[in-house]
Amino acid sequence: MTEAGEGMYDLVERMYPLCRSITGDGVRATLDIVGEYIPLQVQEVPTGTQVLDWTVPQEWNIRDAYIADASGRRVVDFAASSLHVLGYSVPVSATMPLAELREHLHTLPDHPSWVPYRTSYYKPEWGFCLSQETLDAMPDGDYEVRIDSTLADGHLTYAEHVVPGQVPDEVIVSCHVCHPSLANDNLAGIAVATFLARALAERTPYYTYRFIFAPGTIGAITWLARNAERIEHVKHGLVLACAGDSGQLTYKQSRRGDAEIDRVLRHVLAASERPHHVTEFTPYGYDERQYCSPGFDLGVGSLSRTPYAGYPEYHTSADNLDFVSPGAMADTLAVCREAFAVLDRNRRYVNLSPYGEPQLGRRGLYDALGGRSDTKQAQMAMLWVLNLSDGGHSLLDVAERSGLPFDTVAAAADALGAAGLIKA
Amino acid sequence: MTEAGEGMYDLVERMYPLCRSITGDGVRATLDIVGEYIPLQVQEVPTGTQVLDWTVPQEWNIRDAYIADASGRRVVDFAASSLHVLGYSVPVSATMPLAELREHLHTLPDHPSWVPYRTSYYKPEWGFCLSQETLDAMPDGDYEVRIDSTLADGHLTYAEHVVPGQVPDEVIVSCHVCHPSLANDNLAGIAVATFLARALAERTPYYTYRFIFAPGTIGAITWLARNAERIEHVKHGLVLACAGDSGQLTYKQSRRGDAEIDRVLRHVLAASERPHHVTEFTPYGYDERQYCSPGFDLGVGSLSRTPYAGYPEYHTSADNLDFVSPGAMADTLAVCREAFAVLDRNRRYVNLSPYGEPQLGRRGLYDALGGRSDTKQAQMAMLWVLNLSDGGHSLLDVAERSGLPFDTVAAAADALGAAGLIKA
Amino acid sequence: MTEAGEGMYDLVERMYPLCRSITGDGVRATLDIVGEYIPLQVQEVPTGTQVLDWTVPQEWNIRDAYIADASGRRVVDFAASSLHVLGYSVPVSATMPLAELREHLHTLPDHPSWVPYRTSYYKPEWGFCLSQETLDAMPDGDYEVRIDSTLADGHLTYAEHVVPGQVPDEVIVSCHVCHPSLANDNLAGIAVATFLARALAERTPYYTYRFIFAPGTIGAITWLARNAERIEHVKHGLVLACAGDSGQLTYKQSRRGDAEIDRVLRHVLAASERPHHVTEFTPYGYDERQYCSPGFDLGVGSLSRTPYAGYPEYHTSADNLDFVSPGAMADTLAVCREAFAVLDRNRRYVNLSPYGEPQLGRRGLYDALGGRSDTKQAQMAMLWVLNLSDGGHSLLDVAERSGLPFDTVAAAADALGAAGLIKA
Repeated sequence: MTEAGEGMYDLVERMYPLCRSITGDGVRATLDIVGEYIPLQVQEVPTGTQVLDWTVPQEWNIRDAYIADASGRRVVDFAASSLHVLGYSVPVSATMPLAELREHLHTLPDHPSWVPYRTSYYKPEWGFCLSQETLDAMPDGDYEVRIDSTLADGHLTYAEHVVPGQVPDEVIVSCHVCHPSLANDNLAGIAVATFLARALAERTPYYTYRFIFAPGTIGAITWLARNAERIEHVKHGLVLACAGDSGQLTYKQSRRGDAEIDRVLRHVLAASERPHHVTEFTPYGYDERQYCSPGFDLGVGSLSRTPYAGYPEYHTSADNLDFVSPGAMADTLAVCREAFAVLDRNRRYVNLSPYGEPQLGRRGLYDALGGRSDTKQAQMAMLWVLNLSDGGHSLLDVAERSGLPFDTVAAAADALGAAGLIKA
Repeated sequence: MTEAGEGMYDLVERMYPLCRSITGDGVRATLDIVGEYIPLQVQEVPTGTQVLDWTVPQEWNIRDAYIADASGRRVVDFAASSLHVLGYSVPVSATMPLAELREHLHTLPDHPSWVPYRTSYYKPEWGFCLSQETLDAMPDGDYEVRIDSTLADGHLTYAEHVVPGQVPDEVIVSCHVCHPSLANDNLAGIAVATFLARALAERTPYYTYRFIFAPGTIGAITWLARNAERIEHVKHGLVLACAGDSGQLTYKQSRRGDAEIDRVLRHVLAASERPHHVTEFTPYGYDERQYCSPGFDLGVGSLSRTPYAGYPEYHTSADNLDFVSPGAMADTLAVCREAFAVLDRNRRYVNLSPYGEPQLGRRGLYDALGGRSDTKQAQMAMLWVLNLSDGGHSLLDVAERSGLPFDTVAAAADALGAAGLIKA
Repeated sequence: MTEAGEGMYDLVERMYPLCRSITGDGVRATLDIVGEYIPLQVQEVPTGTQVLDWTVPQEWNIRDAYIADASGRRVVDFAASSLHVLGYSVPVSATMPLAELREHLHTLPDHPSWVPYRTSYYKPEWGFCLSQETLDAMPDGDYEVRIDSTLADGHLTYAEHVVPGQVPDEVIVSCHVCHPSLANDNLAGIAVATFLARALAERTPYYTYRFIFAPGTIGAITWLARNAERIEHVKHGLVLACAGDSGQLTYKQSRRGDAEIDRVLRHVLAASERPHHVTEFTPYGYDERQYCSPGFDLGVGSLSRTPYAGYPEYHTSADNLDFVSPGAMADTLAVCREAFAVLDRNRRYVNLSPYGEPQLGRRGLYDALGGRSDTKQAQMAMLWVLNLSDGGHSLLDVAERSGLPFDTVAAAADALGAAGLIKA
């Protein structure tokens, strides 16, 4: 896993400097990098396209932005950090006194050295984000402000990657790609999703896994709007966000709360004995908001480490490359792999010999020597699978009711299936 | 609220001296007083009327009653307290030795200075209730006993008051009016009901609220028997009793246990952070026994302070004007008002834009500045209402699942309804 | 109960020396003894009969078995204990060095003075069970080994005893009769079943009670195979095993977990205030494995004292006559009787006067004197039965919801039934 952790960290480092937003070349450049790891189908959706209740906005691109003092020195410079510009700022080129400029400045007085992340997607506005310390050091007087941005008809960009499975039923893994230089939110999520896709392709999974790299909210809404016919095939899903900080893993359940993905993540996290949190669904956070809107109500949960807005560095310049680690991303990836390994094998079986126990001994599935009290786990697992294979219990049900490891239960099901005693 | 508390206490004081029973002029006089506060429709049901499994009994009236000693001194005198006579005593006029008289005397040896409350509605009997101290002080010898009562064909009297609502569906509020000079049981209940009716009429409520002032058991049974066609409109109800003592509020749930009234009272009591009790239904207590009989099984709970038979003063002369207070009645009234305010607004809505989140921003319902983590309660309430408005969740469900105050949730529903995003 | 306890212990003592197995004369001799207490219908099922997924095996009988040393002294002798021979050993007559013999010897190194119980029903094998101490004392050298057994076509033997009830619906009580000289497992179970059958016959029960004395696994499977048409009449059942040791009672619930037998046993054990355990179903243990296989899924639980494999003496020579006691068996029997007394009376009633309370007073079922707060349990029980008699609640539901003793509730139902107020 160390190798995967380092690999994911390298990917995060490469994406970090880019200025992403909900549209524009920063998203395209990010997807180009991801595309070096896994093949992507990139979609470009024109400005003005109606998507559910929303409309795809104009595309935003930015080349330069700064605040310069009377001497011409740039006291705030977009080139130093993509966070310095209010996302979706309209262009501006002016000179104005500090008093007037202040209305366009965003700081974090409680964390004077940090730069906040702010946007104004749907109200035309311009602004700068800077540290309180920088602002405090700015003397009164006139400043030159310049934002060399473009808001024009163009496209919204998102990408998909599909790992084909044995059945057309799909699992979606979704992560937002719209945040600028914030490492945990969500470059770590993008990196874990990318490496997860590669791991799943090592052998053909049962489900078809679809990875969605899209800008938050409008991107998920656009994907949902353009995939109306596919939704019925989406059986499970996971939103990945904040996947690389040092906090405990947090699984936020789907709106349904008892969706199979919820049961799988709860089981895997508990069985792994990792300290972790499981939280109820709330209609806030990341794109589970859209997947779990009542019209769709998909079985989509969300996996994070420290969750949405749960750490002071959230949406600030302190969510930087030091805030995430290879080990934390490797741990998140490992849980995803374990969870999908369970989900992928979690069938319901029917016992073909349901009246009394079938005679396992003559099929070589049971110890010949009777009387001992230390019956082995594998035999117990077979008895449990046989007993609960009435079409109503999944292997996860069997594992939870028996207290046996899922792997042991799944192996028992394989053996019983091979002996013709159960069928899925 | 102090004003309401004082007003209720005044009402209790006025009703206290009257000798009420399940029929007779004491009930009528009580209803006359209540009628000064709210208009009442008084019903008179003739003796012999068949009501469900019961028959309206003869009407009982009493003018005087006493036990006089050999000197003619009244050692027990009805004029001093209506409790002194066994309720529904047949007339008697006799002189007898104490030994014989004892069979007709009721005392409370454990509380020697208190007078018990006893009745014999359906078995012809006469008797006196007195303190153990009085009895102990009575020397052997002959006593004159006289009860100047009448048991004759007449009527059973009850009254209704209706606060018209926007819909014909009804909420009933029921209190028993048959107990003599007992302040908490149930003059306080009558007073709270009276002031609640006035408060509800301040603006047209959603439901139609029907207040029932009736003698216990036979009165509720009579009302049910005469309102067979109305029962289907009774959606919720509350029995008010023991509403004025200093104990914690106690809500006794309906037989169904999960009726909407149960959920509302549990929610309001918990949200108010008052110390309180919520108890399971039992087929004993007050007229919830009748409303919750299996043939009706109405969603009717019961609100008391110290509940039925839960205090030593219960059904004794110690349940007097000192035992109740303006503050306690005001507190009971406040909870009733809060509860009916929730019940009255507790609709189920359908999200008219259920696929993904609707764009609240362009409707002026969402902050334009993105990125901040301190999203306001009002916005969260809108997201929750939208997410759970699938026809299956009420606003109370939303409040409980979100942890937001009901008022905030209801205000969000109003705003979303005005924007055309949800409908009831 | 002391008498019953002593009687059961006598029965255990008589059965103890016999060498039982899943077939053969040891089973027949055991059933002959039981048949002296209660009449038995003995069934003989031929070798080779197909029973569900199994086939009735050849019949095994044994006359003698020993290991003799060079001097001819029997160091292990079947005559001393039926445990010394591996159950279903094929015949052997040979002389061999200890090194070769060891492969056929079974000991318990952790309990060096105990002899284990081992079998090999379905794989032809021979062997001896002995104490580790005996083995350690055997010098190297040649030993004569002889097992004078027969494995030949014959029969599998089981027996039934029926206590006819008022209805054809059946309760089965099943105990395994295949273990050799093990007192708790399962001679105590056989003894409790035998005395339970006698107790139930004292008056005609509601249900028909069928007692099954059959070898474990193959016997229960054979009974199920031959009673396909009867299964639908089997409404409840109890497997009795390990019924005589000094441990607490343990009720293992049926696969369904909420079967009526589960609720009855939980109730009776809790109400009796005995320390006890209630455990979840597992597909291991005794013949509940077969009755609760998914095709049958009968409401059959299992009552033991220390449960299956839960004590070190389990399946060893230490499960001897000292390990069980008259008092423990009497206690197990008492709980069975209490449980079946509840089960037998646990009807669902319909209130024939469900609108309001019926007037109990005029039917002589209610105290005439009103106002007292110490209403008696019998009256409360009547109110509870009336309130919950909607066809959906059993008397056990009433007892549990009311907190009243089942007997009080059942007596109330009898009184209300006699008054024509409810019907089953």
